[in-house]
Formats: sequence, structure tokens, C-alpha cells
Amino acid sequence: MSTTPAEHAAMRRALALAAEGPRGVNPQVGAVILSPAGDVLAEGFHRGAGTAHAEVDALSRLAPGEAQGATAIVTLEPCNHTGRTGPCAQALLAAGIARVVYALADPTENAHGGGDTLRDGGVDVESGLEADAAASLLDSWLTVQRLGRPHVTVKWAQSLDGRAAAADGTSRWITGAAARADVHRRRAEADAIVAGIGTILVDDAALTARHPDGTLYDHQPLPVVLGARIVPDRALVRAHPRGFLQRDGHNLFGEHPGDDRAASVLSELRDRGVQRVFVEGGPTIASAFLRAGLADEVLAYIAPTLIGAGSDGRDNPALRVIGVDTIADQRRLALTHLERLGEDLLVVAVPAASETTSEKES
Amino acid sequence: MSTTPAEHAAMRRALALAAEGPRGVNPQVGAVILSPAGDVLAEGFHRGAGTAHAEVDALSRLAPGEAQGATAIVTLEPCNHTGRTGPCAQALLAAGIARVVYALADPTENAHGGGDTLRDGGVDVESGLEADAAASLLDSWLTVQRLGRPHVTVKWAQSLDGRAAAADGTSRWITGAAARADVHRRRAEADAIVAGIGTILVDDAALTARHPDGTLYDHQPLPVVLGARIVPDRALVRAHPRGFLQRDGHNLFGEHPGDDRAASVLSELRDRGVQRVFVEGGPTIASAFLRAGLADEVLAYIAPTLIGAGSDGRDNPALRVIGVDTIADQRRLALTHLERLGEDLLVVAVPAASETTSEKES
Repeated sequence: MSTTPAEHAAMRRALALAAEGPRGVNPQVGAVILSPAGDVLAEGFHRGAGTAHAEVDALSRLAPGEAQGATAIVTLEPCNHTGRTGPCAQALLAAGIARVVYALADPTENAHGGGDTLRDGGVDVESGLEADAAASLLDSWLTVQRLGRPHVTVKWAQSLDGRAAAADGTSRWITGAAARADVHRRRAEADAIVAGIGTILVDDAALTARHPDGTLYDHQPLPVVLGARIVPDRALVRAHPRGFLQRDGHNLFGEHPGDDRAASVLSELRDRGVQRVFVEGGPTIASAFLRAGLADEVLAYIAPTLIGAGSDGRDNPALRVIGVDTIADQRRLALTHLERLGEDLLVVAVPAASETTSEKES
Repeated sequence: MSTTPAEHAAMRRALALAAEGPRGVNPQVGAVILSPAGDVLAEGFHRGAGTAHAEVDALSRLAPGEAQGATAIVTLEPCNHTGRTGPCAQALLAAGIARVVYALADPTENAHGGGDTLRDGGVDVESGLEADAAASLLDSWLTVQRLGRPHVTVKWAQSLDGRAAAADGTSRWITGAAARADVHRRRAEADAIVAGIGTILVDDAALTARHPDGTLYDHQPLPVVLGARIVPDRALVRAHPRGFLQRDGHNLFGEHPGDDRAASVLSELRDRGVQRVFVEGGPTIASAFLRAGLADEVLAYIAPTLIGAGSDGRDNPALRVIGVDTIADQRRLALTHLERLGEDLLVVAVPAASETTSEKES
């Protein structure tokens, strides 16, 4: 890869432009057109499905002929297909662009190949500049393309010893205000929030993303309630600004690790344009997504408290059956973030690429 | 409190001297004698039961009359009783010491009051200089004096979700090498290490404190095995350099939160001069000490892995019944230390002074 400092700076600018677009079924993309001397001629970004792609948005700001011999810096490989807009590769060729530098290859089946089309048209093409930053920006969109489903975060709160509640089911005063604020901030970054009917019935969860003062974040995730029991008339979730979906979670509660109800819910959400799902719990729902291998990230909010099991043997662990019966099947994680939140602790982790080979001390 | 910079420096020196003495049934104490001009005349510290106390050790290094009008800086209030050595308060008076500055008051019933004796003898007495550092140095000795039992650290290793083992009992490859090394380092700081017979039978725990290369630390804690089952002839603990004690842990395993077997073991250990006990587990033993309120510090080594419950309902949590049946009885902790150890996480905490009043998010 051979790129100039001006191209590098333009790519960082294109990434910033991309982030101004909405997260949705289409990727966030930014573009900058540079003169042969390296001066910025135009900028553009994609504003959502049905609107111009970033490259076309940028080109549209130039007079006819002005892009002749220019360089296009784009955060994603220019598309090669005709969707609701024409293929960007053709638009760049038609404008007389001499060189294209993009960060990430387009992984989608019907849009990839724009780089090749440009090369075939005589354009000088480079790729991979700031690829990590572009991948980070598009992580949930890439998950959708790669796995065919939304990116899933499974969250739970627990005592240090892994309990969600005491033996009698009481669970208030586990995590504190700072942890709660963090949960709401992350809810606001999700497109949908999934909770079991038990969480609605027991906790009357509103499933909104709220600031500490109780006001709503501008962006609210779509609430999805899993479970066949009726959501009461006066349940807070009924007042959610986006309404709510309810789906029968029956198979989630069964003893069949191979059940695919969690996957089917995600598939429906994907079709609705959802790219980021926040699985809120309770323990049955969190365990079902983990059991099905449908957790791309886990958030454990750990309160500095011990609960243990009840003297009558009842126990309310934060996670139940996740499909591990012997230690060889444990779900190893890689910690990506660790934070003190007031008195609590937040552990963020992703599934580990491979198992470690350490030993229990004796 | 009014003290000079020279006295402050001498107290820090006395604390360093104190730390050179052995930890045992007697407190570690250091002393520095200063001339009226603030010059160091002599230093001393206590070298263990039956040897001179720190003040007498320092005075013994001076010619007769040399201490006349001098200041004694001592990390603990000079003793007032005649034990195996004479009372230090009298020795200081006899030497003609004009001023005494000590860090901590002596909390023991038969030794306290030295400060008053000195004042009554016309000596200028100050206390509280570097009191926190002195209390930190003597934390386990102070626990013994205050609570009449050794300081207890309860340690366990767990998955992020609080399991010690998978449903079938397998538990290897949970925490890694760095966590294991940390455990051994802390074992070496304890006077005794307590483990259940199950840990001996299942894991063949050696209960030694070992360097990563397998060699033994110089100081080895006394191993104490709780439980009536026989320790096998070839069990590693039988080769422990300090031998091992075995006590019937029967009542620990019962359903009586008020049982006092854990307390009785600690009482016996105290009588043997043990000041720091490291409770190694497994879950039954750790839970028994927590249930009895006999944990001054907890160490949770958290591996980044999820285990959950078994599909047959079996579950192996790191903590079992600790006497909490409803959330109001939860055992709130205060985190004192948080550390990444390789891929693992160490959480060190002590019982919280008071409950927090936060709410579960909904």
C-alpha cells in the first residue's frame, strides 16, 4: 500500500464524516475527493437508505469535469451494484477519477467487486488505509454481513459470587447509580433491547434508555419482550415511545440447547433493520442467548456483595444453563474492558478466539 | 499532637525497624532514642517472644546516663506490665527519658496504660504519630487483640459467573499461571492455611507456598485440614514441611448458621500463635467461614470464562450457603484492590462498614 500524507488525512476526515451518518441497514460511509495536488475538492457521506452513497454525495458537489484526474478517498470499497442508487464504481469512472483509496473491502455478496471494476476501468486503486478504524466504526454492520444477524450484547448484573438475586427472589440494591447510568448509555446505542416477560412482570422494566435525571435519550431502542405471558395494561413498557414487540419465547425456556428461537428473533430483527441488540435479561434470556452461541459481547456488572445460595437450597444465579456440562466446554472469554463504576465493577468481554491452557492451583 | 521533623523521621525509621522483627504472638515494635537536639542515639526492635522489647533493646545500647533527658520514639505504646521482660514504661522512667512519642495505643488488657504511667512519672508523652502506618504493620496482631482470633482471608477462584467447577465437577484450566503465583505469594504471608478434606481428596492440594519454579517459599503456613475423612497415605499434604493438622469439620457442613466450629478452629490456631489464616477452600469451607462472619478479607480470582449450571440441574458455585436468604441480608463488601493477573482478575475486598442504598435498574 502506497499512500500520501494528504490521503491519510483525507481518510481520517472521511471516517469522521461517515460517523455523521445514521447507523442502519446501510453502512456508514464517508468520502473525500482530493485534487492531484492533494487539496480537498469535496466531501460527502451517506445519510441512510435511499439517499446518495458517500462517493456520489461528494461528486455531486463538484462542477462537471472538476473531478477529472482527481483521487477519491472512501471508507468502504465503492459498490458495484445498482440498488436504490447507481453503482458508485461507475459514477467514479464517469467522473474521470484517476485514483481511489478505500479502507475496507465490501463484504456483501451483491455489492463487492467495485475495486476490480475500477481497476478494469484504468483507475489506480489502493485499499486497507485505516482499515481497523473503519472496521471498528462498522462493527455491528459487519457482524450483520458476516453472520447474517445483528450484533448481540448480553448484559447482566450480579453479586461478586454470581448471583442475580437472593434465595427468596429479592434483588434490589445490587448495583449502584453509576452502573445503572452506564447501562442506560449502552441501551441508547442499541437498535433493539430484548427482555424476558419475567423481567417485565417482576421488575416492571420500562426498557427505555434514560439519562440519570430520568429524561429519555434521543435514540430509543425497540423493546422486544420474549415470553407468552400477557404484558399487564399498566406495565411501563406499554408507554415506551417506540411501542414494543412481544414474541413467544417458549423454546428459549426449554431444555433443548439446539433450539433456535433466539436465532429466529434475531433474524426477524435483522429484517427490521436492527443491527445492534442489547439483551437485558433476566437470567433465563441471557442464558438462552449464550447457550445458542449468540452473544458477541458480554457485560457483567459486578456489585461488591456476596449472596450465596439460600439455606433451603434455592439459588438465583445470574446465569443458568448455558450448555456447559464439563470444563472442557467452558465458554472462554477475552476481557476487552474493565471499569470501576462507583462501588461496582464492569467487565466487558468477547468470546475468546481459543482456549487457554492454564491449570487450577493445588 | 506536636512533634518535630526529627521525631517524624525517627518514627518512620522505628517502623522500618519494627518490620525487621518476626510476626508472631508478640507485636512487631521498633524504637529510636533521640538526643534533645534531635540526633539518633540508639535504635532497637523486638525480635520475638522472650527477647527484649524494642525500647529496652534500644536503651541497652546506651551507656548509663546517656538517655538522661532524651526522647524515645516508639511504634507502640510502651507496655505497662511485667511479662517475660519488665515493663518498658518503668525502664524508660529509670533511664531518665524526658519525652516519649508513640504511634499506636496498646489495646491489650494487661499491657495498656504505659502512657499514663509515664505521664505520672513526669514524662512528656505524645501519641498518634504515623498511627495509620503502625496499624497497617500490625493489622493481623491488632485483629487478634481486638477480636480474640487470627485475621482470616478467604480465597476462592471462580468463573466470571461465579462457578468453581462445571456440573460434572471438573474444574481444571479455570485460572491461569499469574493468578496461581499470586495465591502462592499470599499463602507465604499466612501463618496457617485451611482447606477442606474434599480439596485434599479431589485436588491433592499440597498446601505449600511455592515459587513459580516449584521451589518452596522460606516461610510455609501450617496446613490445617478440616473434615473427618482420612487423608490418604500418598496425599501431597502429608509431605508438607510443617506437617499438618486435621480437625473434624463436621459442623461446618451442617445447616446451622450459628455453628461455631470455624470459630473453634480459629481459637485453637490463635493459641498456637497463628495470626494470619488463609482459607483456601473449597466452596464448603469458604462458605462456612463467610457464614460465621469470620472473613476479614476475601480474595476472588475471576477467570474470564462462563460455566453456568449443568443441563441436568447440577451446579458448582464457588460459594454456597453463606447465610443470606433475602437481599437485605446480603454481605456488602468494599473493594480494596483490583488487579489483572494475566487473563484473570483479582478482586480483594473487606466487609463494608455499612450498606449502600442503590437500586436495581429496570
